[in-house]
Amino acid sequence: MSVVIAIDAMGGDSAPAEIVKGALESLSDGDFKLILIGVESAIKRELAKYSLSDNQINRIEIVAAKDIIGNDESPVQAIRTKKDSSIVRGLNLLKDQKAQAFLSAGATGAVLTGATLIVGRVRGIERPALGTLLPNSRGFSFLIDSGANVDAKPQYLLQFASMGSLYMEHILSVKKPRVGLLNIGAEREKGNALTKEAYGLLEKSSDINFVGNVEARDVPLGAVDVVVCDAFAGNIVLKYTEGFAKAMMGMIKEELMSSYMSRIGALLAKDAFSNLKKRFDYREVGGAPLLGLKGLAVKAHGSSDSLAIRSALKQCVSFCAKDVVEKIARSIQK
Amino acid sequence: MSVVIAIDAMGGDSAPAEIVKGALESLSDGDFKLILIGVESAIKRELAKYSLSDNQINRIEIVAAKDIIGNDESPVQAIRTKKDSSIVRGLNLLKDQKAQAFLSAGATGAVLTGATLIVGRVRGIERPALGTLLPNSRGFSFLIDSGANVDAKPQYLLQFASMGSLYMEHILSVKKPRVGLLNIGAEREKGNALTKEAYGLLEKSSDINFVGNVEARDVPLGAVDVVVCDAFAGNIVLKYTEGFAKAMMGMIKEELMSSYMSRIGALLAKDAFSNLKKRFDYREVGGAPLLGLKGLAVKAHGSSDSLAIRSALKQCVSFCAKDVVEKIARSIQK
Repeated sequence: MSVVIAIDAMGGDSAPAEIVKGALESLSDGDFKLILIGVESAIKRELAKYSLSDNQINRIEIVAAKDIIGNDESPVQAIRTKKDSSIVRGLNLLKDQKAQAFLSAGATGAVLTGATLIVGRVRGIERPALGTLLPNSRGFSFLIDSGANVDAKPQYLLQFASMGSLYMEHILSVKKPRVGLLNIGAEREKGNALTKEAYGLLEKSSDINFVGNVEARDVPLGAVDVVVCDAFAGNIVLKYTEGFAKAMMGMIKEELMSSYMSRIGALLAKDAFSNLKKRFDYREVGGAPLLGLKGLAVKAHGSSDSLAIRSALKQCVSFCAKDVVEKIARSIQK
Repeated sequence: MSVVIAIDAMGGDSAPAEIVKGALESLSDGDFKLILIGVESAIKRELAKYSLSDNQINRIEIVAAKDIIGNDESPVQAIRTKKDSSIVRGLNLLKDQKAQAFLSAGATGAVLTGATLIVGRVRGIERPALGTLLPNSRGFSFLIDSGANVDAKPQYLLQFASMGSLYMEHILSVKKPRVGLLNIGAEREKGNALTKEAYGLLEKSSDINFVGNVEARDVPLGAVDVVVCDAFAGNIVLKYTEGFAKAMMGMIKEELMSSYMSRIGALLAKDAFSNLKKRFDYREVGGAPLLGLKGLAVKAHGSSDSLAIRSALKQCVSFCAKDVVEKIARSIQK
């Protein structure tokens, strides 16, 4: 049986157009089925823009959902009351195992809360965590938690470390991923109350390759494969990366345009700059998986276009194929 | 009477050579006196490398201190036992008003702890905070706290906001500096326990121009003038900026060197790249003032060279001339 992935067709700034487009494009990346969830007429209108092959038609199903959960709604409230929203419907498909993965570019809070409430945690996992691939000068590191638990406890961080290691090992084929605790100094006594206690737990764990504290300065240089932190620090790193790369690209442009000579230089080096930009393009990376659940829920960037959706779907397929959920469950029960 | 600045000649990776060099170079930037503190023979050996004018000789004094406090020592312990260290001597000069400012590129923890213990807080200030100018695409924002209080309380953050505003207003001449609370979302209900409570306090304050939460993504784009946060988040932003700029410069170089055409382009755009590098050069920015003390203590980067020391000294002079310490005291007592 091939993998089935459910997609929130209504989530994100460019939904449903870019979501549907990305979904269709992704069909050529592998042998899986898609369920598009959302306002039926809107989805059909988008699908009608393409001349679909029989193969494509057979691999796509629509599940109707009338409601949409917005970014400004209280997540718990929205999940409880909007039963006919694309997010709640999608998470129920995941829970009922009618889909092996659920992807949404919609309201982050609702996806996180809903996933925990509806799909449920793997037995033994205290809190699911959002993991994101962070570009660095050597490739990627996995930042966990990048958005779920802003007030974390030391034991959560230990589980984040295990889940992040499994992800890097199985999805990015990194052997013995180096795990670093994000901190403000390299020495073990550095940091706040959370990191000081978490250090002791991480150090004792035999499941992971803990290399100690990692200073934020060394993260972009690729010092570790897994960066462990609470979601407050993690989300700041994640968003700062996005903003900083953008700001720096703007500054490069500004400086290059400031003289005739450098303008010619910029023209000659055009490919180099577009490669650089690509290295920081979140759309190439896929979405952020919520790890620790009894199924795979993935949050895509709110401004995802078809390319971002396609990358995220590719990642979902690989995640399901490697059965990371089961691997996490086994590792925690040990 | 001209301003007197005390410098820890033994602090930092390149001490005493670069410290003494920077100190001497700075003398041409204004009319002030310097006290070099440290191992007398070592300082004299450095001074002997230069042919000093009478004016220079008259403006420099040496205060002997045999001990040096290392980065790996417990700050409280070191401050208590190493009375004859350059840091303790320097802070005592500040306390006794024999100097109006103290600059050190030495052990951060010892400078922060020592400054609070020896120089003391301005009445009403709960915790002094370290502020740092952070480069952004429009200029600079002031990041406070960037290193002193890793476990902060909401009311500390309110005071950081006031002190940061005064700094930006008087040292960088920014009118009504926009103050943002570093957070993981723009909405007021976002964040962790600390930011949620701090938001309420900041909002009520009439002393500052509070513009709400600022997401890390908007910081490098210059969305606010003062970024308020605890020292854990602040230090991560600070160090991440350093590492990310370095990593990105490395990636730019890598991409530019990857083809013949882009190599020529890089050559033509050489000036543009060196300007870009300069915008992220911490050495141009000066040191990080510890605000909220009854005197000015400034922490320079551990790897400061003579240029960094010279910039930091310039900043000290400007800080003393504007009497920021007194302005903070008055603002807090209101």
